[in-house]
Amino acid sequence: MVVETLAEQVAGQLRRQNKFLVLAESCTGGMVASMLTGVPGISQHFCGSAVVYRETTKQHWLHVAAATLEQYSAESPETTRELARQVLAQTPEAHVAAAITGHLGPDAPIHDGAVYCCVAQRGIRAVTDSDLAHESSLDFQLVSRSRIERQVEAARTLLSFLNQTLADNP
Amino acid sequence: MVVETLAEQVAGQLRRQNKFLVLAESCTGGMVASMLTGVPGISQHFCGSAVVYRETTKQHWLHVAAATLEQYSAESPETTRELARQVLAQTPEAHVAAAITGHLGPDAPIHDGAVYCCVAQRGIRAVTDSDLAHESSLDFQLVSRSRIERQVEAARTLLSFLNQTLADNP
Repeated sequence: MVVETLAEQVAGQLRRQNKFLVLAESCTGGMVASMLTGVPGISQHFCGSAVVYRETTKQHWLHVAAATLEQYSAESPETTRELARQVLAQTPEAHVAAAITGHLGPDAPIHDGAVYCCVAQRGIRAVTDSDLAHESSLDFQLVSRSRIERQVEAARTLLSFLNQTLADNP
Repeated sequence: MVVETLAEQVAGQLRRQNKFLVLAESCTGGMVASMLTGVPGISQHFCGSAVVYRETTKQHWLHVAAATLEQYSAESPETTRELARQVLAQTPEAHVAAAITGHLGPDAPIHDGAVYCCVAQRGIRAVTDSDLAHESSLDFQLVSRSRIERQVEAARTLLSFLNQTLADNP
């Protein structure tokens, strides 16, 4: 029930603020989009989700720079921020983008359970560094143990962060 | 458990055939990707999913022709086939693409519960009409009543169809 409530809370914020959302998901593998699309009427506020599960998909679909992936890795605050900005830039209808990457594991070789979120809101003009109305990031450490539980925890973390960010930046 | 088994079956087929899969999801809203990414090791066989929930997202991300949407609608065998071909063309690493659209409802104004699936496999060269190694479609009528049950039923239908298509066309 908590999961559904979070998705409904985000849907409510989007409705009240009359905004369209777009997602870029890596470690959650489409679960955030799946939770949101369980809310009736969400198609009036949800453009879609680029589930970019592989590095090459991040590059081909969202043009994440090879240098970013090389320097910071595919699971990092820097890559997550680039995913949020790029998916917003490629979705003219969207006002706000949320992105997530992370080491879901369990027993990932490094940074096991570390997750990175970013929410970016569009300015008046095109999305450039100087034209994001707002951008904020969250680094998070998962506490669940199993893969599925971790995926759910990561998805809920992004929805909660997005809900708070929308409330703070209407 | 059935859901997990279907995703595991698809993962097993991809592993045995050494293939990469990519998805384009509309009515399932990322649930098919979410089911697949619950399988450990799937990142070696799953590129991602373009969850194109809005018509404009179908156009901007996957270049579905406005004429196709206008003539056949966003939920149709024709649009679904175009989504499968386009997501395959835009994902060089992928060997096979599966796409799904449909009127999830419940109580959709037309064709309530009608779902359309398409699986396209890449030929040797680039993806053109004459170079798809294999392409097959499935039209399906959902029997579940609630929105969430219908989303699960539609996701399972695509996984089942994909599993059978991979088995028939290794």
